Amino acid sequence: MHATNFRKLTPVSLKGVTIADRFWAPRQEVNRTVTLPAEYEQCKKTGRIDAWKLDWKPGQPNPPHHFWDSDTAKWIEAVGYSLATHPDQELEELADAVIDMIADAQQEDGYLNIHFTVVEPQNRLRNLRDMHELYCAGHLMEAAVSYYEGTGKRKLLDVMCRYADYIDSVLGPEEGKKRGYPGHEEIEPALVKLYRATGEQRYLKLAKFFVDERGRRPHFFDLEARERGEDPAAHRGGGYDYNQSHLPVREQTTGEGHAVRAMYLYSGMADVAAETDDETLLAACERLWGNVTQRRLYITGGIGSSARGERFTYDYELPNDAAYAETCAAIGLVFWAHRMLQFDGNAVYADVMERALYNGVLSGISLDGRRFLYVNPLEVDMQAHRHKAERFGRPRFSPTRQEWFSCACCPPNIARLLASLGAYIYSQAEKEVYVHLYVEGSVELGIDGHAVALQVETDYPWGETVTIAVHPDQATGFSLALRIPAWCRAAEVQVNGEQVGIKPLMDKGYAKIRRVWQRGDEVTLRLPMDVVRLEAHPAVRANCGRIALHRGPLIYCLEEADNGGNLRDISLPDDAELRVTFDENLLGGIAVIHAEGKRRDLSRWKDRLYQPLSSATRTIALKAIPYYAWSNRTPGDMLVWIGRG
Amino acid sequence: MHATNFRKLTPVSLKGVTIADRFWAPRQEVNRTVTLPAEYEQCKKTGRIDAWKLDWKPGQPNPPHHFWDSDTAKWIEAVGYSLATHPDQELEELADAVIDMIADAQQEDGYLNIHFTVVEPQNRLRNLRDMHELYCAGHLMEAAVSYYEGTGKRKLLDVMCRYADYIDSVLGPEEGKKRGYPGHEEIEPALVKLYRATGEQRYLKLAKFFVDERGRRPHFFDLEARERGEDPAAHRGGGYDYNQSHLPVREQTTGEGHAVRAMYLYSGMADVAAETDDETLLAACERLWGNVTQRRLYITGGIGSSARGERFTYDYELPNDAAYAETCAAIGLVFWAHRMLQFDGNAVYADVMERALYNGVLSGISLDGRRFLYVNPLEVDMQAHRHKAERFGRPRFSPTRQEWFSCACCPPNIARLLASLGAYIYSQAEKEVYVHLYVEGSVELGIDGHAVALQVETDYPWGETVTIAVHPDQATGFSLALRIPAWCRAAEVQVNGEQVGIKPLMDKGYAKIRRVWQRGDEVTLRLPMDVVRLEAHPAVRANCGRIALHRGPLIYCLEEADNGGNLRDISLPDDAELRVTFDENLLGGIAVIHAEGKRRDLSRWKDRLYQPLSSATRTIALKAIPYYAWSNRTPGDMLVWIGRG
Repeated sequence: MHATNFRKLTPVSLKGVTIADRFWAPRQEVNRTVTLPAEYEQCKKTGRIDAWKLDWKPGQPNPPHHFWDSDTAKWIEAVGYSLATHPDQELEELADAVIDMIADAQQEDGYLNIHFTVVEPQNRLRNLRDMHELYCAGHLMEAAVSYYEGTGKRKLLDVMCRYADYIDSVLGPEEGKKRGYPGHEEIEPALVKLYRATGEQRYLKLAKFFVDERGRRPHFFDLEARERGEDPAAHRGGGYDYNQSHLPVREQTTGEGHAVRAMYLYSGMADVAAETDDETLLAACERLWGNVTQRRLYITGGIGSSARGERFTYDYELPNDAAYAETCAAIGLVFWAHRMLQFDGNAVYADVMERALYNGVLSGISLDGRRFLYVNPLEVDMQAHRHKAERFGRPRFSPTRQEWFSCACCPPNIARLLASLGAYIYSQAEKEVYVHLYVEGSVELGIDGHAVALQVETDYPWGETVTIAVHPDQATGFSLALRIPAWCRAAEVQVNGEQVGIKPLMDKGYAKIRRVWQRGDEVTLRLPMDVVRLEAHPAVRANCGRIALHRGPLIYCLEEADNGGNLRDISLPDDAELRVTFDENLLGGIAVIHAEGKRRDLSRWKDRLYQPLSSATRTIALKAIPYYAWSNRTPGDMLVWIGRG
Repeated sequence: MHATNFRKLTPVSLKGVTIADRFWAPRQEVNRTVTLPAEYEQCKKTGRIDAWKLDWKPGQPNPPHHFWDSDTAKWIEAVGYSLATHPDQELEELADAVIDMIADAQQEDGYLNIHFTVVEPQNRLRNLRDMHELYCAGHLMEAAVSYYEGTGKRKLLDVMCRYADYIDSVLGPEEGKKRGYPGHEEIEPALVKLYRATGEQRYLKLAKFFVDERGRRPHFFDLEARERGEDPAAHRGGGYDYNQSHLPVREQTTGEGHAVRAMYLYSGMADVAAETDDETLLAACERLWGNVTQRRLYITGGIGSSARGERFTYDYELPNDAAYAETCAAIGLVFWAHRMLQFDGNAVYADVMERALYNGVLSGISLDGRRFLYVNPLEVDMQAHRHKAERFGRPRFSPTRQEWFSCACCPPNIARLLASLGAYIYSQAEKEVYVHLYVEGSVELGIDGHAVALQVETDYPWGETVTIAVHPDQATGFSLALRIPAWCRAAEVQVNGEQVGIKPLMDKGYAKIRRVWQRGDEVTLRLPMDVVRLEAHPAVRANCGRIALHRGPLIYCLEEADNGGNLRDISLPDDAELRVTFDENLLGGIAVIHAEGKRRDLSRWKDRLYQPLSSATRTIALKAIPYYAWSNRTPGDMLVWIGRG
């Protein structure tokens, strides 16, 4: 990726970044040594790997599903990122073998999709609305680029270029092609990646076509449905906003429909805008960003509040117990935020990216790396879940972690994000180095032809201090742009031990320290992490009368394991002191928030169901843990938004 | 109905009771002059009346539904009650004509059901689990008894005796009969009514059989399903608790399944227990009562919290916005409570009966008598309803009133209860007269061969004073048992102007004044109606941090028309003064509760979705109205459980 007129920042790529902290580094290690092997095993066990052999025959069990390809693809993409920084022969051999199978599965004409080769060959590219072919293609393209960049091996990249060429020969604005685009977006950002990796302009043009064509009238999905002999109105998604094709994208102003699809589309829009200097497309992205983050975003970074349609609903509708907030959607938000951030380095994007990463994304994977959440509620009432499961059968997605899902998008998605985390930390602009996230480790940069290394020491997100030692190979002038998180209200900066007034340095949420840096210069950032009570906008009905606790970038929650069940009956007085201790032995080591809360006294109730209000409560010791760490003990109740006392 | 060993009280029947207050009397008048004619028109318009002609032919539109019979039946029952106290030639002629049609529809063998005569004649009594034949029969029996008692006309009574005889010839424990019982209970209490009206023991015996047989193994519904060639496990109700056949009734301890069915069963159980001195059956009723009223009862008297299955869920699960609380279920609770109350005059039953009557039943009908609620939520978020209706189509039951429903059980049910209200006010026991409800008017009694009239003056539920003048034809000794409502904590009694200590008089919630009454003796009861904040048991998660307001028997709510929308953001400080004014011109004349509440200040928010807690609120004038009167203005948000400030 390179700077353009529009996009002033360029992310520092994976390979130059070292992560060596006690928060993320162990997660990456678990990802490499536990999660990726386990996900391979799941793919193997469920037939997803061997399906690439294309030997399924009609009548046999377990027909390859139409989005199986994407699971393998995301796993390869994750392996590619991991190999970029952590060589691992075993993983690489596994991935090479899968890539060989994929290559062998490619058809003469370049087409490549398991389901539509062996199950429904007659229906190839006939139902872009529902059938995920372009989605699978996109994931395979991202895998190809990642694996190429991580290992230097071109095999999958070449395969995917051939497939992209095939798609480009079938879809597009030109005479004789179908003006189609995907029902599940993903190929748009993938094609831009492929363009960046190969320099092939046609891939960018095709991505732009998919973005531009979307939602135009006559509606492609109508035409396509009629060609299949179907009534377009019978679409199960119930309206084109489900897949963001209700309007041309530049006319869209609110985050609608299936949240993962929306994030992949918006990411693709940002990519196309950046590569084509498209002001109207960027403006559309900004409007959508405003709506999603100011009206439809859980405090954990989760999005898509409704399980029905896995989708956005309407402004301020953010139920806690019924929250869907799919792991993939929060991941998609990180993708989109990271892209928006590069345009002109506005920290609002990094703030949301950080919030999602440290909370609603990370909650999606267990501490041991073996189990996942598909949905990320902000409140769990286990009794209600047990009751519903007993009465109506096991729900599609439970609030307890599982090793795999029949629709398995989330596990490899979180694996690829964890493996590529290094790419989200730093950006460069002209004579500027941006630090978006604070992660102990280092980064190697080239500035004006000079090699510059930054050495970061911090215990973030637990500790409040970040020390950045600057090591240019020789004195070099540039700005060091340090993000001052929106959650922090009293940041302080020292340069070589001297306090610097922070206000004059501020530019779009970053403190920019301009100087000619000498080897050994040191910047110290203090980000006081007082525990803060947050309230939600009054229109968020679910949170009226409630507060959420955060410390630094972390949102906290109450779990039954620490506080007993029925957490709604707990209240936290507004003036209760909030104390923090660090517990090395709890949940991998976490900062715990302690407070004196209240519960009503059950012994006063006996068999009454209602009684005149008596404020009789007993004092209880409350203990809140970071949201990302919930559901790693005995399954039980959980609550983010706590009643005010 | 007569006293038995078990049942010490006998309700004073309709004809002896005059209702002349400003609360109920106008509702009864509207019921007679507006609701009953309108319901007839709806039945006519929708084909329910003409269906009795049995001229529907296969292939024609609008086939008679398998529970249409019950709608006409409840309407006739209501007309019967109304005629008992308010002669109305037009209504009587309408009802006579319908009864003629019903009589003509009876088959040679006594069988009588529209659907199973013209639509599925081959399936008569082959699916008792799902097909409502016995339910329809029960409602027709109740109609027959009511019409006979109200008008002296026996035609329908004779028809229904023939039908009961037919049913008795087919179902029962004897050799050659099916050991079947209804999936939707109702015939049990109906048969006891028929027994009481006719003295025919077989009807009581059949009712007892239905009650006793229920839930026994092998399960009749399994046997019956297999006879139809169906898999019993495929039952859509999902488990026999849906229709209370999961256990023999004497082993049931929790209110389960479809709430209306449960109420009709429990009413039938109480009736059979009373008539057969059945201790174990009464004990089962008492256990079920405890569970339903101490664990599963909305503060409005609503029951059956889940729309899915219109059913009970589990202890303390009482969501407000998703509350189903069908009007018919609250009506059924009144039936059951009234029956339980007669056993030994325990006011706990009258308290619940009053709560349901004045709140969750009455909310089911509009003030003008023309529109109905099928579901009675305790919170409405109109935006959410509009959103769901737009996206997923009009829901089966909306939170706004409708003139009729395709499943039209509620409108005629509330009509029959309103028309028969007089029967719920008084009971007699040996030398005791019970006053359960305080309604201005009078009652004529016979005690020890003496005629005694009570003249009641009160503005209940608005006014705190009840004056009862006792007029025996000559001095007569008996106890006047006045219910001291559980909501009242400082009741006072005067006899002929002299204060009497109330504590020594108390017996199971009634103040019993024993004396030899002289003509003109006067008892004055003062029931202070301070506004009280109620809290729910801590395990009722939906109500944690919230209070409900009541005054006297009335539960209050906030409506958008008075308080703006988004009522969840309103809080009422625990120490806010609660003032009451009477507004003659509002909603038919109501006592309004006023208070100073708080709302957060939207102007402080702009585009933020979350911010550090500031307790900034503005003071607002809150206005609460009785719950029964909600949804009689522009549809909008509504809230019973108000956040504590």
